[in-house]
Amino acid sequence: MLTRVKQVHHYGRQLATLDTASKNEALEAIALALEAAQDDILAANTTDCEQARRDQLPGPLYARLELSPSKLAAAIAGVRQVASLADPIGHIQLHRELDRDLTLKRVTCPLGVLGVIFEARPDAVMQISALAIKSGNGVILKGGHEASQSCRAIVSAIQQGLRKSVVPPDAVALLTRRTEIMELLTLDEWVDLIIPRGSNDFVRFIQANTSIPVLGHADGICHLYVDQFADVDQAVAIAVDAKTQYPAACNAIETLLVHQEIAPQFLPKLATAMTAKGVELRGDDLCRQIVSIAAANEDDWATEYCDLILAVKIVPSIGAALGHIDTYGSGHTEAIVTDDGAIAAEFLAKVDAAGVFHNCSTRFADGFRYGFGAEVGISTHKLPPRGPVGLEGLVTYKYLLQGQGHIVQDYTGSHPRPFTHHDY
Amino acid sequence: MLTRVKQVHHYGRQLATLDTASKNEALEAIALALEAAQDDILAANTTDCEQARRDQLPGPLYARLELSPSKLAAAIAGVRQVASLADPIGHIQLHRELDRDLTLKRVTCPLGVLGVIFEARPDAVMQISALAIKSGNGVILKGGHEASQSCRAIVSAIQQGLRKSVVPPDAVALLTRRTEIMELLTLDEWVDLIIPRGSNDFVRFIQANTSIPVLGHADGICHLYVDQFADVDQAVAIAVDAKTQYPAACNAIETLLVHQEIAPQFLPKLATAMTAKGVELRGDDLCRQIVSIAAANEDDWATEYCDLILAVKIVPSIGAALGHIDTYGSGHTEAIVTDDGAIAAEFLAKVDAAGVFHNCSTRFADGFRYGFGAEVGISTHKLPPRGPVGLEGLVTYKYLLQGQGHIVQDYTGSHPRPFTHHDY
Repeated sequence: MLTRVKQVHHYGRQLATLDTASKNEALEAIALALEAAQDDILAANTTDCEQARRDQLPGPLYARLELSPSKLAAAIAGVRQVASLADPIGHIQLHRELDRDLTLKRVTCPLGVLGVIFEARPDAVMQISALAIKSGNGVILKGGHEASQSCRAIVSAIQQGLRKSVVPPDAVALLTRRTEIMELLTLDEWVDLIIPRGSNDFVRFIQANTSIPVLGHADGICHLYVDQFADVDQAVAIAVDAKTQYPAACNAIETLLVHQEIAPQFLPKLATAMTAKGVELRGDDLCRQIVSIAAANEDDWATEYCDLILAVKIVPSIGAALGHIDTYGSGHTEAIVTDDGAIAAEFLAKVDAAGVFHNCSTRFADGFRYGFGAEVGISTHKLPPRGPVGLEGLVTYKYLLQGQGHIVQDYTGSHPRPFTHHDY
Repeated sequence: MLTRVKQVHHYGRQLATLDTASKNEALEAIALALEAAQDDILAANTTDCEQARRDQLPGPLYARLELSPSKLAAAIAGVRQVASLADPIGHIQLHRELDRDLTLKRVTCPLGVLGVIFEARPDAVMQISALAIKSGNGVILKGGHEASQSCRAIVSAIQQGLRKSVVPPDAVALLTRRTEIMELLTLDEWVDLIIPRGSNDFVRFIQANTSIPVLGHADGICHLYVDQFADVDQAVAIAVDAKTQYPAACNAIETLLVHQEIAPQFLPKLATAMTAKGVELRGDDLCRQIVSIAAANEDDWATEYCDLILAVKIVPSIGAALGHIDTYGSGHTEAIVTDDGAIAAEFLAKVDAAGVFHNCSTRFADGFRYGFGAEVGISTHKLPPRGPVGLEGLVTYKYLLQGQGHIVQDYTGSHPRPFTHHDY
């Protein structure tokens, strides 16, 4: 396998220095090749789906595996959409004269090789390959066993398309054997970023088993804090959206924190609205004195339900809400509803999470909604990139310094030449 | 120990939201307290130095341990210098309307807790504490055993100073027991960034034993490529500077690559200049047909000498130079000397390193020379921050979204409300 990874590294380096037009032409060639191979891809997917039914693959996984003609068409449209995004490479982030004729630039450049590991979802192969090419990176794809025929047909079409472009087809490689995941995770000298696409447990496993940087997040335990000075109807609407609009999403809320002063007006309205949406509420003792709901225990505060269940807790102050979020939050997205500007400002300043929201749903935490044009993943790491990550998460930068024979000796000693440090 | 780390996390959070003036006042209070404690600090350092002599500490380590009154004064001046730097917190990196009254901002904020582990160098305690406070981070310092008395006296003075400011003194903590390093490296839930300051082996050990992000680099194998179209005198001057101006620095060159066409004119001049500076040259067979120097073997291409030794290799083309750098380079800083603009452009584009230089010395790769005002470290990681890292390496960002009851439901379905995505 190392040979193939080195090959991706090698051909990825050729891709790294291509201009925007060449990369976009390659994306169009891929889109055309995928359209031409449509029947083969759908037939391969049918084979995978038949096997998956025999293996009794769980429903949600099966749904992600299945490629309808319209889902395939949407994925091909997605490839063309990536071509329309701005090229993230070659941006000059800093341009500074250090001294006369000694000029420093900081310029964005590709990372090198991306390792993408995913469960089911053959459509992700098309999306991530397009994003890798646009950002000038080689890419090693490791699909789940359940999608092996689909992935093979798709990657074969992608490489077919690349043969009609200047992008080397071997800058994209597919690994097919399950044992290759563990080997891939050890290749920190050759692989620059791992992108896992799958369940929380899957991401946690990847994170625990590699020293390569991982773009992603395991948990998404998001809170909504309904402050004493919240508009009750607004708070109910935001809570319903944040819980029910897509309960399996990582940016859905799991726990609602309610200020004790507003709880008697808020909780009955909340319970009515949530019950109508089929949401089970689990509350602490104080909640249950106001509304008749199930009891929450300590585990509820630390659980990402991914389902129509919401834990509810009454707090005496914003300080208590901040303390609860600091203890149980996963650093993903946290929100407050309040009409008091000072309290909102305190919440925005003090909560340490990738996203901190005021008077809106946590479900807005998303690369497309933020206007990034694409989303590679959402990171809950402290270091950047943090939060929803677009194409810029697939690039790094290097410093280019150009002189005319400049040496450091002249800038040291008893009469050092001064630097000018003048930004252009 | 966990208790103390949690304490730093807790008090660091208070520091995180302080304004610039408060942090600068705290830095001035630290400078005054260090001045007041000058005699105690120097006495403690004398005790450490006496013990170090008894323990026969190696010369370079002893030199870094010893604090003269002037070295201490320079370190205190450094604390005041950090106060004069721009505050890295609260910068708005992105300001976008997602829709009417739904506004997204990306704002820089502190990482949280820094773990700094260093050998000898008590002056680093003052510098890194100042940088941590300026960037709003709590800091846990673990000094080497050999500097234990000095570190204690310095941290005691720093905390004394902080008591006269609004910064909580317990946002800075000193660990003194050797066993605490290993425990610190496991606390990925509480420590956000590890900064090692020491030898390559020391950094490599830290990197191999933690899942916390590490800011630093182990190896610095930098190359200078003297192209066929180089100005020979300029190439000699740059090579001498890059090798001899400070041979122990990570940005000094270890290997010189010479195009075969220029080697007959260049190598004799190089040999004369390097010999005058006491540099031992080790060449491949082709070199040794031109100048009488020692033989290089395979190990030389992969060695960071940190000394007055330079490996020299003749290459037939820029492609061969790029291949050698790709194989042996550590991604730190690589340079070319050439008067051919196209060849320079190819080198700058194709070399994958934190710094790629043209017609100047690799020794310029440094945060102060780049005009960052401070240098926290030099990173050879692919992901940002890469290269010399100033205060900006100690911060991250969060997304703040403010609405007026906005929910995602309205932006989905058959008649979705469109986003405006308008940047301010």
